Amino acid sequence: MRAMRLAQIGRVEPKEVKVPKVKNCEVLVKTQAVGVCHSDVHVRSGYVGNISLKDLGIMLPVTLGHEIAGIIEEVGDEVQGFNKGDAVLVYPWIGDGTCYYCKTGEENMCDHPKQLGIHTNGGFAEYVKVPHYKYLFRIRNLSLVEAAPLACAGITTYRAVRKANLRPSEVVTIIGAGGGLGVMAIQIAKATSGATVIGVDIREEALEAAKRAGADHVIDGRSGNATDEIRKLTDGKGTDAVIDFTNSERTLSVYPFALAKHGRYIMVGLHGGELKYPSPLAVFQEIQFLGSWLGSQADFIGIMDMAEKGKVKPMVTKTMRLEEANDAIDNLEHRRAVGRQVLVP
Amino acid sequence: MRAMRLAQIGRVEPKEVKVPKVKNCEVLVKTQAVGVCHSDVHVRSGYVGNISLKDLGIMLPVTLGHEIAGIIEEVGDEVQGFNKGDAVLVYPWIGDGTCYYCKTGEENMCDHPKQLGIHTNGGFAEYVKVPHYKYLFRIRNLSLVEAAPLACAGITTYRAVRKANLRPSEVVTIIGAGGGLGVMAIQIAKATSGATVIGVDIREEALEAAKRAGADHVIDGRSGNATDEIRKLTDGKGTDAVIDFTNSERTLSVYPFALAKHGRYIMVGLHGGELKYPSPLAVFQEIQFLGSWLGSQADFIGIMDMAEKGKVKPMVTKTMRLEEANDAIDNLEHRRAVGRQVLVP
Amino acid sequence: MRAMRLAQIGRVEPKEVKVPKVKNCEVLVKTQAVGVCHSDVHVRSGYVGNISLKDLGIMLPVTLGHEIAGIIEEVGDEVQGFNKGDAVLVYPWIGDGTCYYCKTGEENMCDHPKQLGIHTNGGFAEYVKVPHYKYLFRIRNLSLVEAAPLACAGITTYRAVRKANLRPSEVVTIIGAGGGLGVMAIQIAKATSGATVIGVDIREEALEAAKRAGADHVIDGRSGNATDEIRKLTDGKGTDAVIDFTNSERTLSVYPFALAKHGRYIMVGLHGGELKYPSPLAVFQEIQFLGSWLGSQADFIGIMDMAEKGKVKPMVTKTMRLEEANDAIDNLEHRRAVGRQVLVP
Amino acid sequence: MRAMRLAQIGRVEPKEVKVPKVKNCEVLVKTQAVGVCHSDVHVRSGYVGNISLKDLGIMLPVTLGHEIAGIIEEVGDEVQGFNKGDAVLVYPWIGDGTCYYCKTGEENMCDHPKQLGIHTNGGFAEYVKVPHYKYLFRIRNLSLVEAAPLACAGITTYRAVRKANLRPSEVVTIIGAGGGLGVMAIQIAKATSGATVIGVDIREEALEAAKRAGADHVIDGRSGNATDEIRKLTDGKGTDAVIDFTNSERTLSVYPFALAKHGRYIMVGLHGGELKYPSPLAVFQEIQFLGSWLGSQADFIGIMDMAEKGKVKPMVTKTMRLEEANDAIDNLEHRRAVGRQVLVP
Repeated sequence: MRAMRLAQIGRVEPKEVKVPKVKNCEVLVKTQAVGVCHSDVHVRSGYVGNISLKDLGIMLPVTLGHEIAGIIEEVGDEVQGFNKGDAVLVYPWIGDGTCYYCKTGEENMCDHPKQLGIHTNGGFAEYVKVPHYKYLFRIRNLSLVEAAPLACAGITTYRAVRKANLRPSEVVTIIGAGGGLGVMAIQIAKATSGATVIGVDIREEALEAAKRAGADHVIDGRSGNATDEIRKLTDGKGTDAVIDFTNSERTLSVYPFALAKHGRYIMVGLHGGELKYPSPLAVFQEIQFLGSWLGSQADFIGIMDMAEKGKVKPMVTKTMRLEEANDAIDNLEHRRAVGRQVLVP
Repeated sequence: MRAMRLAQIGRVEPKEVKVPKVKNCEVLVKTQAVGVCHSDVHVRSGYVGNISLKDLGIMLPVTLGHEIAGIIEEVGDEVQGFNKGDAVLVYPWIGDGTCYYCKTGEENMCDHPKQLGIHTNGGFAEYVKVPHYKYLFRIRNLSLVEAAPLACAGITTYRAVRKANLRPSEVVTIIGAGGGLGVMAIQIAKATSGATVIGVDIREEALEAAKRAGADHVIDGRSGNATDEIRKLTDGKGTDAVIDFTNSERTLSVYPFALAKHGRYIMVGLHGGELKYPSPLAVFQEIQFLGSWLGSQADFIGIMDMAEKGKVKPMVTKTMRLEEANDAIDNLEHRRAVGRQVLVP
Repeated sequence: MRAMRLAQIGRVEPKEVKVPKVKNCEVLVKTQAVGVCHSDVHVRSGYVGNISLKDLGIMLPVTLGHEIAGIIEEVGDEVQGFNKGDAVLVYPWIGDGTCYYCKTGEENMCDHPKQLGIHTNGGFAEYVKVPHYKYLFRIRNLSLVEAAPLACAGITTYRAVRKANLRPSEVVTIIGAGGGLGVMAIQIAKATSGATVIGVDIREEALEAAKRAGADHVIDGRSGNATDEIRKLTDGKGTDAVIDFTNSERTLSVYPFALAKHGRYIMVGLHGGELKYPSPLAVFQEIQFLGSWLGSQADFIGIMDMAEKGKVKPMVTKTMRLEEANDAIDNLEHRRAVGRQVLVP
Repeated sequence: MRAMRLAQIGRVEPKEVKVPKVKNCEVLVKTQAVGVCHSDVHVRSGYVGNISLKDLGIMLPVTLGHEIAGIIEEVGDEVQGFNKGDAVLVYPWIGDGTCYYCKTGEENMCDHPKQLGIHTNGGFAEYVKVPHYKYLFRIRNLSLVEAAPLACAGITTYRAVRKANLRPSEVVTIIGAGGGLGVMAIQIAKATSGATVIGVDIREEALEAAKRAGADHVIDGRSGNATDEIRKLTDGKGTDAVIDFTNSERTLSVYPFALAKHGRYIMVGLHGGELKYPSPLAVFQEIQFLGSWLGSQADFIGIMDMAEKGKVKPMVTKTMRLEEANDAIDNLEHRRAVGRQVLVP
């Protein structure tokens, strides 16, 4: 079968490989749609933040692609409840099953992760082997192209909103509100908390997208007085939470200072900025900075349930061919992508 | 009556003032013991962190002293349950009663605080007026000198440990473990969570004090490899929580990097350091930085209950005369104090 | 001024009384709208559940009426932020301010309550004295008739939904879904949790009202197989939470058995039923039964914020004259009321 | 190998069976100590509560025994971190790994449980096959006889105390305080919450055992005025939590009425009593009834960590031979057992 593999830093290459065999609880999925994610840019470049692939436990060669929707081709002899022909989305944040985090339902935090498309071969290929059918979620009401990005973009967003722990009388500010994750975050926050949402982005069309997704207010981050505007919209109090899908030097230098007392700053993005904040202010105002990383199986169930019931609209997607994987990653790297690029083998 | 007032930045001065009159729910307390706190150093200097008194809503002149234990001298006509002669500790973190935080039981976070000894006249005086008897806690099993420091040092510590949200199988590292707050934190953590405690300090006698208070391990912070030692003590995993009673540039540059995944860094101290932390690491490990500030009435009840029942031993104290208030503050400023200095009018 | 007072069990009587005087933090409110609540039926009858007024700390005579919206007529000399002429809703669940619950923000649970219209004179009168301006919430976008029922019906509903602790993938069943509280509960649950809502009621028009309010499914409680229907709607799993606004013998004998594992049964109603449940089933399934009573100031802020922003539509109301207080209570007692009856002095 | 199997309701019988073979992640453990639990009485009798084995998904024949400590005899070829000769305790509350509860770290609540010694062959045998090494906990500082009862009695107790959510200023009352679970609950509550503990039991030696374990007060449940005594010990307030290890008609008719406002009643025991409680009281006082069932892997780690570190002393045990399994179950049924009976093959 065809696979787009990362054998050397810098570029994924097409390669003919064997179709995996499955046994026991394993499932072979025929890839129908696989999203291209910003972390593919990082992995291809050899570094995530400034951490090397080796330090992240990632070994080459590996077939990238972790947002995988497909049709079951074959099931191992211990698989229950799933059959050939079923349309499924794959939970890719697979752990070793034996560490503290795996045992306590936080598999995305595993000490020795075996994530699909990161540590083990993923979905930039005609077929992908899923090591256990417990990682599958049946797709009923979504197209596979719509569903694919939920496995990473969707789950990450869901968890981040959950960690913001919003009350209905509160205000949450979403940085990168017009991007794929931002647009979902707006919808999830509105649907599950009743909080008021301020969307921040830096392009006109992104601000429009945030508005359409339901943001109560939008702010142009280029204006230079975003925190003033947030203070104005909140009667001087500040925003009760920020969800930062960027975490660049710039966003981290601005938006923590827009927080109200007891404010929570949810850090999601991987643009590599350094958090710098005066500790006395964090003390006086009991500010919280909270990292949020991917999502657990509970988060997966949460976002899939919402999407299947139409409470979250799928991301805008653009389909490309599997062979165009590098182009898609290039587009992300150079910020030319509009909507989630989904490869269709 | 005599009062030690801060009329000008830099020095508190003795002054003869009128004994306050009380009415309605107010209570006049004859001061018997009043602790001297590091925040008195800050306020006397005109700045807390780099925030000016004016920006903190503090107006001069004011009688300092917020750790107040005394005997009720007179009660207003609406006071219930308290009588002349009762020994009481005063909750000093008084709010306006009408803001969101006051209404929801977080009076220490009040938008317009009226804290005793900070915003209104406090306990560096023969008598102090408490605006409502709900701020009094009856002292039964402690001496008034022992009780006084609980109103600030005790409550602050209690809340910080509570925010660390420790499980019995976890490890908490306490920075400044041999100081007054650190010693109490060790006891509270041991008594209320069952967690393993690592104490960090930078003087031999402080490390001894931490051990005596029950620390399972102590580390000399001067050694230069404290994070390595913490990793060693935790089988490489890191510490599940840090409670930093210093928050200096130095501690903030070292101990956040000793955290395990899902680790919580509780920021308590006011030494003014800047928190600097790479956002990708906070994301990957879901690190939390949490400011903790003084304590609520619930925290006051919590620490007083523990102290009254002997679950937390009182801080070591050294009594001085009211007129020595400046000397006591000087001692703190120049780190000459051993144990809490308590003024006895 | 005119007041409708309960001087003897069984009937409120008109009486000419003096307009209260206010001082300090007190506020005199000119009543514009006062809701009539089912608890007025209980109090007038001398018993709530089978607990006597005396055991509840209620002493006659007292002017009933605890859902009070009005215009400020006069403010005490320490009142800040409120002025004559302001439209306000009154938080009536006033405590002594000094018990554990009051100190920790749960004033509705006070050990020595002084609730307006229950323990002290309430709103069935031309004027009512509010003991502190902190109990006032400014009304901006609602009419006073719409606002009044939020002080009890609204706050009670808000807290009950909050206690159900719903996730977006869960299902909540609301008993009494077409009544005033039920209709609000549906809206609050939908707006703040994203959960699926099943409404149960026993009249056709009530089921219609539940649907209009947004219930995803409705079940006729008279059908005799409500639990089967709930199981069917939840793929056999059962409902993750029940909010029971009735708590009659009948509802308590049926709906606890419709709960899923980890299900929460929120008990709100005062119809006096006895909860009977086999303990092994509660153990095996980790079922929770949780009482919910009125609401705190935080809940008051929550429901008022939602109502002011249009996230919860006001209850249907019917205005009557103050002198018709007994008739209104009679209507409730004999289930003749449609919509909340609001007295307009 | 020898196994004591339940082939027919009423009696386990010795039977010669084959030693299981292991592959992949499976582990063969040579049983060294296996506790006899009250649920073995229930299962042997054909009913738990009044639920039949069939309705519980239990099929005969099955080898009982779920508190299993032993030495690893053989490991499958995918097992990591465990080797032949290792001393281990087995987590027996095994689920299907694919239901909502398993995926979210609550395997003890599994929809299709495969619990060792209940649904699949357990430890009343010379060898037991554990389906995955993730269910093993290495024993270092305990004897295997001491460790065995932690797998059920220990974990159940740990979770129950955790659910009581105790604050240090609170009071918890433990019903059955002198039994094996009660004695551990006292220790866990003391070590992890700082709360005051009242122990209730109905035999003199049990009250002695509760005292030795650290109960602050003990009450003889036979006295007939236990709730009065609890009220007296709590200044009339009542107990903040009850942990009921019995749940008989008698205990459920008495101790719920000893709860303070906001009190939690943790239901653990399987004596089959019906919970009966007036709903108005549950509402007015916001009482909570919470079922607690076995424990998750997180609870297993929690109790094992405490026991290994000496924070919880092992239960008193009495060793018997494997062939005496029926006698041991008889002893439990007829309340003749003193201390946990542990079979040693």
